[in-house]
Amino acid sequence: MADGQTKAERIARALDHFSIEIPSWGFANTGTRFGKFLQPSAATSIEEKFADASQVNALTGVNPTLALHVEWDLPNGTDDVPAIQQLERKYGIRAGSINPNLFQDQAYKYGSICNPDPEVREKATSHMLDCVEIAKRLDARDISPWVSDGSNYPGTQSIRKRIVWMEESFSRIHAALGPAQRLLIEYKPFEPAFYHTDIADWGMALELARSAGPQALVLVDTGHHYQSQNIEQIVAWLLHLKMLGGFHFNDRRYADDDLTLGSIDPYQVFRIFHQILSDPDLNSLEIAFMIDQSHNLKGKMEAMVQTVATAEELYAKAALVDLEELEVLQQGCKLVEAEECFRSAFWEDVRPMVRDWRRSRGLPEDPLLALAESGYVEQITAERAARNMKAITSYA
Amino acid sequence: MADGQTKAERIARALDHFSIEIPSWGFANTGTRFGKFLQPSAATSIEEKFADASQVNALTGVNPTLALHVEWDLPNGTDDVPAIQQLERKYGIRAGSINPNLFQDQAYKYGSICNPDPEVREKATSHMLDCVEIAKRLDARDISPWVSDGSNYPGTQSIRKRIVWMEESFSRIHAALGPAQRLLIEYKPFEPAFYHTDIADWGMALELARSAGPQALVLVDTGHHYQSQNIEQIVAWLLHLKMLGGFHFNDRRYADDDLTLGSIDPYQVFRIFHQILSDPDLNSLEIAFMIDQSHNLKGKMEAMVQTVATAEELYAKAALVDLEELEVLQQGCKLVEAEECFRSAFWEDVRPMVRDWRRSRGLPEDPLLALAESGYVEQITAERAARNMKAITSYA
Amino acid sequence: MADGQTKAERIARALDHFSIEIPSWGFANTGTRFGKFLQPSAATSIEEKFADASQVNALTGVNPTLALHVEWDLPNGTDDVPAIQQLERKYGIRAGSINPNLFQDQAYKYGSICNPDPEVREKATSHMLDCVEIAKRLDARDISPWVSDGSNYPGTQSIRKRIVWMEESFSRIHAALGPAQRLLIEYKPFEPAFYHTDIADWGMALELARSAGPQALVLVDTGHHYQSQNIEQIVAWLLHLKMLGGFHFNDRRYADDDLTLGSIDPYQVFRIFHQILSDPDLNSLEIAFMIDQSHNLKGKMEAMVQTVATAEELYAKAALVDLEELEVLQQGCKLVEAEECFRSAFWEDVRPMVRDWRRSRGLPEDPLLALAESGYVEQITAERAARNMKAITSYA
Amino acid sequence: MADGQTKAERIARALDHFSIEIPSWGFANTGTRFGKFLQPSAATSIEEKFADASQVNALTGVNPTLALHVEWDLPNGTDDVPAIQQLERKYGIRAGSINPNLFQDQAYKYGSICNPDPEVREKATSHMLDCVEIAKRLDARDISPWVSDGSNYPGTQSIRKRIVWMEESFSRIHAALGPAQRLLIEYKPFEPAFYHTDIADWGMALELARSAGPQALVLVDTGHHYQSQNIEQIVAWLLHLKMLGGFHFNDRRYADDDLTLGSIDPYQVFRIFHQILSDPDLNSLEIAFMIDQSHNLKGKMEAMVQTVATAEELYAKAALVDLEELEVLQQGCKLVEAEECFRSAFWEDVRPMVRDWRRSRGLPEDPLLALAESGYVEQITAERAARNMKAITSYA
Repeated sequence: MADGQTKAERIARALDHFSIEIPSWGFANTGTRFGKFLQPSAATSIEEKFADASQVNALTGVNPTLALHVEWDLPNGTDDVPAIQQLERKYGIRAGSINPNLFQDQAYKYGSICNPDPEVREKATSHMLDCVEIAKRLDARDISPWVSDGSNYPGTQSIRKRIVWMEESFSRIHAALGPAQRLLIEYKPFEPAFYHTDIADWGMALELARSAGPQALVLVDTGHHYQSQNIEQIVAWLLHLKMLGGFHFNDRRYADDDLTLGSIDPYQVFRIFHQILSDPDLNSLEIAFMIDQSHNLKGKMEAMVQTVATAEELYAKAALVDLEELEVLQQGCKLVEAEECFRSAFWEDVRPMVRDWRRSRGLPEDPLLALAESGYVEQITAERAARNMKAITSYA
Repeated sequence: MADGQTKAERIARALDHFSIEIPSWGFANTGTRFGKFLQPSAATSIEEKFADASQVNALTGVNPTLALHVEWDLPNGTDDVPAIQQLERKYGIRAGSINPNLFQDQAYKYGSICNPDPEVREKATSHMLDCVEIAKRLDARDISPWVSDGSNYPGTQSIRKRIVWMEESFSRIHAALGPAQRLLIEYKPFEPAFYHTDIADWGMALELARSAGPQALVLVDTGHHYQSQNIEQIVAWLLHLKMLGGFHFNDRRYADDDLTLGSIDPYQVFRIFHQILSDPDLNSLEIAFMIDQSHNLKGKMEAMVQTVATAEELYAKAALVDLEELEVLQQGCKLVEAEECFRSAFWEDVRPMVRDWRRSRGLPEDPLLALAESGYVEQITAERAARNMKAITSYA
Repeated sequence: MADGQTKAERIARALDHFSIEIPSWGFANTGTRFGKFLQPSAATSIEEKFADASQVNALTGVNPTLALHVEWDLPNGTDDVPAIQQLERKYGIRAGSINPNLFQDQAYKYGSICNPDPEVREKATSHMLDCVEIAKRLDARDISPWVSDGSNYPGTQSIRKRIVWMEESFSRIHAALGPAQRLLIEYKPFEPAFYHTDIADWGMALELARSAGPQALVLVDTGHHYQSQNIEQIVAWLLHLKMLGGFHFNDRRYADDDLTLGSIDPYQVFRIFHQILSDPDLNSLEIAFMIDQSHNLKGKMEAMVQTVATAEELYAKAALVDLEELEVLQQGCKLVEAEECFRSAFWEDVRPMVRDWRRSRGLPEDPLLALAESGYVEQITAERAARNMKAITSYA
Repeated sequence: MADGQTKAERIARALDHFSIEIPSWGFANTGTRFGKFLQPSAATSIEEKFADASQVNALTGVNPTLALHVEWDLPNGTDDVPAIQQLERKYGIRAGSINPNLFQDQAYKYGSICNPDPEVREKATSHMLDCVEIAKRLDARDISPWVSDGSNYPGTQSIRKRIVWMEESFSRIHAALGPAQRLLIEYKPFEPAFYHTDIADWGMALELARSAGPQALVLVDTGHHYQSQNIEQIVAWLLHLKMLGGFHFNDRRYADDDLTLGSIDPYQVFRIFHQILSDPDLNSLEIAFMIDQSHNLKGKMEAMVQTVATAEELYAKAALVDLEELEVLQQGCKLVEAEECFRSAFWEDVRPMVRDWRRSRGLPEDPLLALAESGYVEQITAERAARNMKAITSYA
């Protein structure tokens, strides 16, 4: 390498600065609209979610925080903060981003902060203000609302008015933020709305963040894009504009499939990581890496550990790109040479070096194997099976 | 028109031969994976579904049959047949297509007739054989299985073996069919499986139908296609091959959105109807027109009546295409003239003529208005609200 | 209608304020990468393009301006301005938007204003500055650059650096604008670049316009979107932000197919027009409506006249939406009623009323028929056939 | 490995049976509809194409045949056969698949074998019969027609009639085949036609092949699919049906972008190769692997060598999948374990083993490097530059 470092050193330097937040809802039973396939080991309480997260972090060492979903994890709002703090201490896992819920209440049938009814908008805004307060008390930096609002049929809602209503709500949220807090605005093209979604793409999220204030940034969910859209280019733009707040990581083939990261298109994840690792201001960047997946079939614990390990390996590959050489080849428009330079880092089998790094940091070399050997899944299965299998949620 | 008929006569002739089956599940509460927005007037029993269907048919006159979903409507299998027959008599609605359920049971987590476990495949096949028996007793012509099997991750299942397993199962189903019965094989690109779906497109459905036997045909769900795929061309091919068994009608923008027919792209529905109405063997066709929609936000009754009325109007437009003139222009490659000839039928406002036809057949001119004036929704709301609103199905 | 106007009056008021610019290149032979199908009547000189445009405007009355492509129409830059001015007077057609060419010169192989080579960037910027000067002399308001730059393979170019280069170039263009001039920045997801396109979506175009200055706005080409993207929502956002400069109209099914407007999805065009006609600041809007199509098979003159007539009819339908009633239904979340209110305007057969309006303005009732009866195509075929058919451009 | 072979042995065994045909048109200047970027080293004669192919094969050893395009390479039909035979001998490269041209002649404006004009259909069929004759004389096994026919606008052509016309034509072609010859029918969703393409998907190609006769098979072009379509599943189906004739390899992101294989989604290519390598009848398979790419920006020679090397490496990765272990894991529905087993072969850095194999077969270890060191590109640039750069094909 031009910088005199060995490959192993480059990987170690990159992984030493890499961490990824895991979501509390990644341990609970989820499904598709056609039903859920229940898992006997799924977490059914916030304590079980902390316990599972703690076990993942024990195996990987890179997951010190747990994203919380207020509706499910703090159903009593701020009153639940002390209980969360106790779990933080007990399990050695800190609360991560705070996620409002704007889609589940029957009141949100026609929208939350975009609802034509001002009372519903107030309810939704008020819920987000509660989330800001919860975050303050938990010393959590990021509030991550996903506005699922939209409409299913042309003509049934005023797209224009709803823009204004969002601006009004986000301004109020922003005004309530503490000085170190951030509002991360997520976008998604469709689902659960099928004709228009009020925050459909990064351009809309960016405009809303700008209108809200300087502590509002954009959140990129890798599964929330149109077919063939170039995600790494969006990342490059947000880095250029200093408006990239973080990621929700998952993979997808068709829609928002919420598959494990890198399972469908690993080369794309590598390219996204390359944009980040080649940012000239990388050292001062504060990008939240978060997993947002819904494991319908894979075991919850296995899938989470597998995702973290895959993320590390793809991040390590991206760290091997020879940026100095690449820059020269790009500047000279040496297309084949530049591509080979770039792609050769992807072709490298980094698994041995990542294993070495893990061992050198006192971590299990193979987290998936360590999980299997730990007997953890068998243990929680025994504890939780009865509770999990009693109810079946169906389509009808 | 070249055939000497007035427009009104053409429309009347077309509509006199038009009927469309409504699905029992179209009256029940449904939702997305993020939750259901409950409707106080939703049907919660098979009798309520018959009652609602009967009311729709009273308003439209073109919906004499009700598609049944065995899992939900005949949970005791053939034992429930007498009850269904009683409802048929009481409400003047006949049982329509019989729909197996191959996706809801926990046993189907890794597939039904494609499951590597032969016991699960047997269970699924046996369920379909029960459906054939139910259909025989109900004098129902069509068995319409939707095989939702697939996998979420590359490498996790053998695509090849699963083809063979499907062939084996469908052969057994076909062997059990009565002489007037038909097996309609549906396809869908994705959801609930996100990497591969075992019957992903019309080519796969066609091969399976061929392999099953002469009474197996293909079912086209208008929402089950790739972005930009030309559905009317697939219809033309299936008509050419005499392999078109029927339709599940709905509309979509992104995925299988199950929106009301014609709500997103009405011109496409017109083009599909044109393929059917220009079939040289139209009189001998036995194409099952069925609605398959999931109304998450629209009122169930209103959406169903609206769908039927829209289908009639688009069918009427298609009936106005001057086939003789169009043929001449197509043969001469008069592109602009042919397009104008074709599209002018779509531009026609057929609503007055369809209203005239309804009145002449003793039906309400405006079914949606008639529904509103009937007070039916208010009545069932009063009856059903308490039952419907007691439970909320959530994402977590 | 709530405002007391008849439908005919609403349509007349709308069409009296409707005009649409036609492109000079719409009259010349074009093709796909697999070859061109030559038309004997295609225009081969700038005078023939003016003549054809003049004939279209004589038939429709709504096309007073002709978009010019500097590379093809003013190959000598400002030196050609007097000749253009003479044609303006001779044919009664004014020069419209001025379109730079950033894709054809061999120097642009690796990009124009995004090229790593500063000399090529200078050449491209200089060409655009020439276009500004041409526009000033022709009293043309809009400069419409389409930056086709991009790359075909991951890693071969620095997406980040190219953003900066674009910003630098557009700033210089903006600085050169006269007080009444505007810079319209167009976006396109792909083609001719297949991995990344430097201005890929409306968000990127918007950021570049903002960075350039207050006279820079976004241009929406209806064919330049991802599959299933909601174009009318983007229009709503740009209207809200007062950043909508204009449109390039065409239709598409798969990629940038450049088909005639409304030929694939007419309902979508209606919805776009609805956003514009329901803008509260409509009277002060300055939105450039322009056609950008490439007729590979349809006759050039027929396709242009057909497009204009279709645009008028869809604009007339949109003018029939009862905005007052719709607002009430949207506010009340009366989904089915709102949709029926909205869509009923689309179902209206406005052709008789549009014909009436044309006649009342001294125009032919049926422009396509008038074109056929004029013998114009036969006349130009006789004049131009020999020149057109001598060369065949092939794939090899 | 369960079979006792080392990884290197598995790779060697696979590569010893791997060859890939290169296309004559891959060495000539091509472009997009917006123009061509000319390359001074591009081939301009059939002899130069043979020379270039010979050089590629000297570097890779796996490209013994050259696909020929009759219109461009044998413009005088069978009369050119002796010249081709002379080039075969001179350059040690055999003629490969014979490709008719059904898209370039002005007569094909409205279609070739689907044209409503029977004379044009006859012309196109006659051209394909000439191709069969050429193939016979050249001892070439495969005739590979790509039927680019379609229409741009709804209603302008009869989709139904055109199916019949295709069946008639292909029947005649099939009847003319020699006993060892094959007719490979290709499909493509769109381009150059934008509303409907007569052979749009694998189902249509399969039906046409069946209708033509037992020597007709399907050709899969990896770039000819809808967004998100599962190509390896189609391959699995065609293998199951014994109807897979061969491949046209390239990569794509949006449309038929004709990029170098594996440049956008290398994991997908790996999965396709896995379907082939896990076919139980692999030894008796006769699948034609062919490259079909259009290098607009990359150097022709470099791109071709890069493609071949990438194909070898991805094929080698696929050869490392432990089929026995995978089968057990798939049968047991061990999702994470099966995926890791499968994907670990993809993660392997096979480049050292492939280099060893090349050296052991007397080939350059690094074909791209060997090409650079050979000075071949510089040599042909000197010879051909003047001819290549004299003409610029433009958009207008």
